Amino acid sequence: MSDPKSVITRLHGAGGSYMHNLIKEYFLPLYDGYGEIGLDVLDDGAVVNGVVFTTDSFTVRPLFFKGGDIGKLAVSGTVNDIAMMGGDPVALSLAVVIEEGFSKVDLAKISESIKKTAEEAGVHIVTGDTKVMEKGALDKMIINTSGIGVSSDALKYNFSVLRKTREVKHEWLVPMNLRDGDKIIVSGNIGDHAIAILSSREGIEFEISVESDVAPLNKMMKAVLEVGGIADAKDPTRGGLADLLNDWSEKSGLGIYIRENDIPVREDVRNAVEFLGLDLMELGNEGKAVLAVSPEMVRDILDTLHKTPWGKDAEVIGEVRKDIQGVILETVVGGKRLVTRPVGDPVPRIC
Amino acid sequence: MSDPKSVITRLHGAGGSYMHNLIKEYFLPLYDGYGEIGLDVLDDGAVVNGVVFTTDSFTVRPLFFKGGDIGKLAVSGTVNDIAMMGGDPVALSLAVVIEEGFSKVDLAKISESIKKTAEEAGVHIVTGDTKVMEKGALDKMIINTSGIGVSSDALKYNFSVLRKTREVKHEWLVPMNLRDGDKIIVSGNIGDHAIAILSSREGIEFEISVESDVAPLNKMMKAVLEVGGIADAKDPTRGGLADLLNDWSEKSGLGIYIRENDIPVREDVRNAVEFLGLDLMELGNEGKAVLAVSPEMVRDILDTLHKTPWGKDAEVIGEVRKDIQGVILETVVGGKRLVTRPVGDPVPRIC
Ligand SMILES: Nc1ncnc2c1ncn2[C@@H]1O[C@H](COP(=O)(O)OP(=O)(O)OP(=O)(O)O)[C@@H](O)[C@H]1O
Ligand SMILES: Nc1ncnc2c1ncn2[C@@H]1O[C@H](COP(=O)(O)OP(=O)(O)OP(=O)(O)O)[C@@H](O)[C@H]1O
Ligand SMILES: [Mg+2]
Ligand SMILES: [Mg+2]
Ligand SMILES: [Mg+2]
Ligand SMILES: [Mg+2]
Ligand SMILES: [Mg+2]
Ligand SMILES: [Mg+2]
Repeated sequence: MSDPKSVITRLHGAGGSYMHNLIKEYFLPLYDGYGEIGLDVLDDGAVVNGVVFTTDSFTVRPLFFKGGDIGKLAVSGTVNDIAMMGGDPVALSLAVVIEEGFSKVDLAKISESIKKTAEEAGVHIVTGDTKVMEKGALDKMIINTSGIGVSSDALKYNFSVLRKTREVKHEWLVPMNLRDGDKIIVSGNIGDHAIAILSSREGIEFEISVESDVAPLNKMMKAVLEVGGIADAKDPTRGGLADLLNDWSEKSGLGIYIRENDIPVREDVRNAVEFLGLDLMELGNEGKAVLAVSPEMVRDILDTLHKTPWGKDAEVIGEVRKDIQGVILETVVGGKRLVTRPVGDPVPRIC
Repeated sequence: MSDPKSVITRLHGAGGSYMHNLIKEYFLPLYDGYGEIGLDVLDDGAVVNGVVFTTDSFTVRPLFFKGGDIGKLAVSGTVNDIAMMGGDPVALSLAVVIEEGFSKVDLAKISESIKKTAEEAGVHIVTGDTKVMEKGALDKMIINTSGIGVSSDALKYNFSVLRKTREVKHEWLVPMNLRDGDKIIVSGNIGDHAIAILSSREGIEFEISVESDVAPLNKMMKAVLEVGGIADAKDPTRGGLADLLNDWSEKSGLGIYIRENDIPVREDVRNAVEFLGLDLMELGNEGKAVLAVSPEMVRDILDTLHKTPWGKDAEVIGEVRKDIQGVILETVVGGKRLVTRPVGDPVPRIC
């Protein structure tokens, strides 16, 4: 592998420490002080002029996988980043870059999938761009979606509840709202997306019936915001739970304690993960949210999640603790290990 | 070349009739009725909730060219699409997809160029995304920028002036505002970007000192909106003047008459265009605007343009006419020809 000191390597796209260092070195200098939630927060999106604004490019391979395709992923991914800020998604842009020779039949399928997912989320595709690169200059297709969202009554209500437990400086879901004792909820089974993608790849030899969890989560988020008491939410995409929890710990200055036994995982996914020698904590998901919630509200939030199709397997997996540093995992056998940000990508190009 | 009936070809990225038909067939069905200026208008951007929203991916090659680089282009292109709607650019997203092995020195140069151009435009980079594709899966780098902008006093003043000459339904710069007799202004020399890109490519054998015109035009637009009387503005990027004027003619239902003699072109660019057998009308630009303005205001607008660095070579090149159909060019020798949308790209991957 080439030297990560002088050139970009795959590690820099892995959603772990290499990527974060790259972003800090090359893109954080673009921060100029602007925004209610600015670039410096490095959260799921920014908030400017009362509008949530976010972007993601999708390079997933294969384009069609068990449970979804690049179109469904591109809509869900950006809807989710808006929803994880507490925003109500309004409109998306759709920029496709296509390799010469790409099948129009496949393009039609992807476009239909985009339409269906946008309808499901209740978000509008309002603008776009289409570029073509010559054969060999791009592996099939890339999609970028960017999105804007707005605050809602549900979000305001959430903070009116949260205010009973703490001083709240930001009326958006950001890690600075975390407090000692907050419960950590994951909205459902972990690892489905990464394992479904892996098992959809040619030449990968294992049988598993799991589908990607890819889905827009804005309706689930609205339901829990209406209960109230959520301090922060984030989707465990590239870098998985390990990266997400480290992010929260760094930005809040608090420790996080997680019980491995309580992390919901499908039996066959757990087996596949063990068989393949992967770390469940680092696997990417595309239809899950991690919530930090005030302990007073955790029961009601969990009940509400369980009534939605996206949150039916939700579990409390741990809590925020000021007496520890970093992310500590209590393992299945009862030991404790420090969870750091991932370095490499257990499954590259999952999004 | 592959069959454009069943697969995507380079023609579909050429900013002409093939691309427009592709967009109409595969992406226009995503329109769901939403937006003050919705997807159906197929303009430089959309307007939703009072916010201008636009996106572009940049695949330019080479990444560094005479007069600019992909970073400057990515900021300018999206700032300009906002400005061409009449919007005041507020914030941009920045999504980079990088090929494994890409030089960090080049990445730093591009990041600095982005910062400089954003500062020049007074726009803020607030969010982004970074993906890496394995070696061979992408030719070096793609950048997507999306952007949001807002209405301004200048835009409102512009329409207060325009209202003296017509009924105005849309308080944004859209082709539906065009009227018989409007003057067509181009803000400066045509063809510089395409020719600079071409002459920056390896193996291209001609000597020319022209630089790309790539620049953010929002300050120029603000200056002319403060004069008032502008019906529409659009930047002649892919597809050049030929595509832009056909777009206006189709969407307004009016004819457009252009005098070739009045189109400003650098002498050396004109020679290169002739030498290479290209059509000036189809060449892409990245720092030019075409304005349709009420005849009462044309003198003041031109004077104002001439005082700005971006509009110093601005000229009136023709007018909107209800007595003709489509786009008619009065050639240098006095003949007339119908200008249609381009089919292919005289210079591919200019943006
Ligand atoms: N090229 C870039 N320029 C500016 N900011 C960037 C860039 N790349 C990433 N960022 C910022 O870094 C943070 C982390 O980005 P990341 O892409 O990991 O978040 P995400 O979109 O939530 O995750 P994923 O892309 O895996 O879905 C975000 O705040 C993002 O805005
Ligand atoms: N994939 C897509 N999905 C939805 N709309 C699209 C898509 N591609 C293009 N469009 C829409 O088609 C219209 C024409 O797009 P085009 O990219 O030519 O405009 P532009 O950005 O002004 O030009 P350029 O990309 O050359 O700078 C725009 O309204 C754009 O929003
Ligand atoms: Mg996210
Ligand atoms: Mg994301
Ligand atoms: Mg475009
Ligand atoms: Mg444009
Ligand atoms: Mg554009
Ligand atoms: Mg991202």
